[in-house]
Formats: sequence, C-alpha cells, structure tokens
Amino acid sequence: MSADSYTPTERTRLQRRPDRGSYDRALVHAILDEALVCHVGFVLDGRPHVIPTSILRQGESVYIHGSRNNRMLCALADGAPACIEVTLVDSLVAGRSGFGCSMDYRSVVIYAAGERVDGPEKPGIIDAIVQDLIPGHRVRPPKQKELDATLVLRFPMVEVSAKVRDRGVIDVEEDYARDDLWAGVIPLRLQAGPPQDDVRLKPGIATPDFARNYRRGR
Amino acid sequence: MSADSYTPTERTRLQRRPDRGSYDRALVHAILDEALVCHVGFVLDGRPHVIPTSILRQGESVYIHGSRNNRMLCALADGAPACIEVTLVDSLVAGRSGFGCSMDYRSVVIYAAGERVDGPEKPGIIDAIVQDLIPGHRVRPPKQKELDATLVLRFPMVEVSAKVRDRGVIDVEEDYARDDLWAGVIPLRLQAGPPQDDVRLKPGIATPDFARNYRRGR
Repeated sequence: MSADSYTPTERTRLQRRPDRGSYDRALVHAILDEALVCHVGFVLDGRPHVIPTSILRQGESVYIHGSRNNRMLCALADGAPACIEVTLVDSLVAGRSGFGCSMDYRSVVIYAAGERVDGPEKPGIIDAIVQDLIPGHRVRPPKQKELDATLVLRFPMVEVSAKVRDRGVIDVEEDYARDDLWAGVIPLRLQAGPPQDDVRLKPGIATPDFARNYRRGR
Repeated sequence: MSADSYTPTERTRLQRRPDRGSYDRALVHAILDEALVCHVGFVLDGRPHVIPTSILRQGESVYIHGSRNNRMLCALADGAPACIEVTLVDSLVAGRSGFGCSMDYRSVVIYAAGERVDGPEKPGIIDAIVQDLIPGHRVRPPKQKELDATLVLRFPMVEVSAKVRDRGVIDVEEDYARDDLWAGVIPLRLQAGPPQDDVRLKPGIATPDFARNYRRGR
C-alpha cells in the first residue's frame, strides 16, 4: 500500500463487491469533509448504540464533541472501541426491476478508539469545528467554563475504508429491451435556503455572504 | 403512556436535555418516512459495527434489506441486537459563540432484534421499498432467484425514541448584546435535480413526472 492509501484490515476489506471499496486517502477525506454528521457505533453494557454527531477531519484524525455529561461520549472517551460511519446519498437509481433500484452514494467507515483532547489544543479544535460547519462565521472567544463543559474526542484514521456506488442504472441485460419502463437517475444534493437572521440580532448587522451563499459538497 | 406514544425504557429515556426527547409515534413515523438511509449498529465478535442502508417503515415495523451473502446482514438476521438510527439535518445554527453553534435536526433511535421476512410477504415488502424510495416508479415483477438472493429483515418498533432540536439560535444571555457578530440559521434540505434518463432507455419513453418533481420531506 502506498502512502496515498489506507491499509485494508480484516474488518475494512470488503467481502462482497470489492469494486465498490476504496482505501484512497483523498477520497476518504473528501467524503468526511462534505459530511455534516457521522454515526458513531459503540458497545455499552454489551449492547450496540449509535449516536449521530457532527464530525471534523483534520489531517489523519477525526474529532467529535459534546457535553462532558454525555454518558455515551464518556464511554468513548474512556477508550471504548468505536465504529464511525458517514454516508452521503448522491442519487436515487430507478432501474427496470426492484433489484435494479438503488442509490448512488459515498460512505466511509473508521474503526478506532477515541482519546480526550485537552489542554492548549482544545480551543483550536472547537474553532475548527465551527469553521468546518459554517466557513467564515465569526464567534466570540470561548469561556473557560465552556471549554471545561465540552468533551472533545480524537480518533486516529488508521483502519479506514470508503465505499462508493456511482454507476447509476445497472439492470439485468434482458431488461434493457423493455420499451414500457422508465429507468434513470434522480440526483440529490443538500441545498441551503435563504438564511434567517436571529430575531434578537442587533440592528445594522447584515446577513453575511457566507450565509447567503452556503454550499456543501461538490 | 398513551397509544400515541412509545414507552420509554432505560436506554431510550434521555439522560440529558429531556426537552429534546420525544416518544410520539406520529413524530417518529414522520422522521423515519422522510429518511432515505438508516445507520444500523450491532456487535460482531465483540466489536461495534455500523452499516448504512435504506429503510422502510410500515406500521410499527422497519425493514432493511440486502444480499443474503452480506455477512453483517446475516448476523442481524440471526437476531443480533441492533440499534437503528436515523438523522435528518434541518439547519445550521450560527450562534455568537462556538458553543452557540449547532444544528437543528430530527433523529430517531430504535433498539430491536431483527427477524427474516420470508414467504408470501416478501415480494410486497420489496415493492414497498421501491415505492418508498421513488413513489410512482414502475418496475417489472421480481424473479424468484432475485427474491431468494435478497435478505429482508423486520425490526419491531417497541423501544423507540426521537430527539429533536428546532430552536435555532440559543445564545447565553449576555451575547445577545453583541453588535459585531451575526447570528442566525441556514436552512438545509435535500433537493432533487433534473432526472437523467438511463443511456440505454428505449426511444419514446418519456421522463415521468414523479422523477421530474421528486421531493422528499417537508
């Protein structure tokens, strides 16, 4: 494996449809950077749990955060093994059979254990989370008590894979002869609407361009 | 608890921010019906896994499906406890501090064990999955070998909760006095683009209205 790729492991090597699997770092980064939320799976009291939360990637780490009083985040902070999953749906695929109907998507899975981010690095990560969510948005500096109330966790990106379906309609050969059934693709994208100023916004503060022109992804 | 609500359990009762929690069936149904994909957490060999997959709700059951050769689906078919999670991001919340930045969202968590759907019920569920994904889309009837190759799992909706954040900006009181920081909400929605006919579509088949006017959610 080159430096441009993650090394497959028993868990990240696709058993089926290996053509959809990828270990390409640039592809993985692009998917993670476009995603607003990830889905963190972990085991607590022997049972599976999944929590949705915002995600930030920086280099070869991903970061999640939340309240220090969050029982599930605390379990992750204590090093419980996690499976972090991100999925972007790119289009609906309308085939000529039920089995030809699908979605084009891009997904990433990361298996990792988390560690607490504390000390001088923490404010920078929290700032980066804001900038990742809403690039250009200015906020006041954090208070110490806010930093203390927030748990930030880092997960190293080592055991990582992407899965991509982008081929549109794939029907069984004989179905292409059907002259009575439509088939095609309906593209989907996350679209930002006009921003709404906070009702308590002070007069004279204009809605900024980064809010008017917000765009996520390709 | 009335018939209109799920009964909270130890796992579904929100420990923090109980104001964001809901057990209302109509709300849970609406979130599940809008979602295209769910995130299924489960434990395999003692480790957490999360797989994204399409989801159908019918009554008080949700259904997922996939290849009968999918190792992870097979583990779920054998009754491994699952945590099924769905999240819809409704808007970005730009507050006046990092801690005031957030997202408005609607999410659902279901704890359940799955069971295989076989026999005469199976084709109907697969048809419902297609109609849920792309309402109005016509497909040819399934072949027996396609049905045999597909695993359909049902999960009963008993241990269920929703979590909703819909309050926009919630800043600490003193921050509302800032006359130098914008705050507001950027609404997000999944937007369908113009459908693309399959390149092998037979001449004379028009792009149907349900594809031109595809709309998901509110």
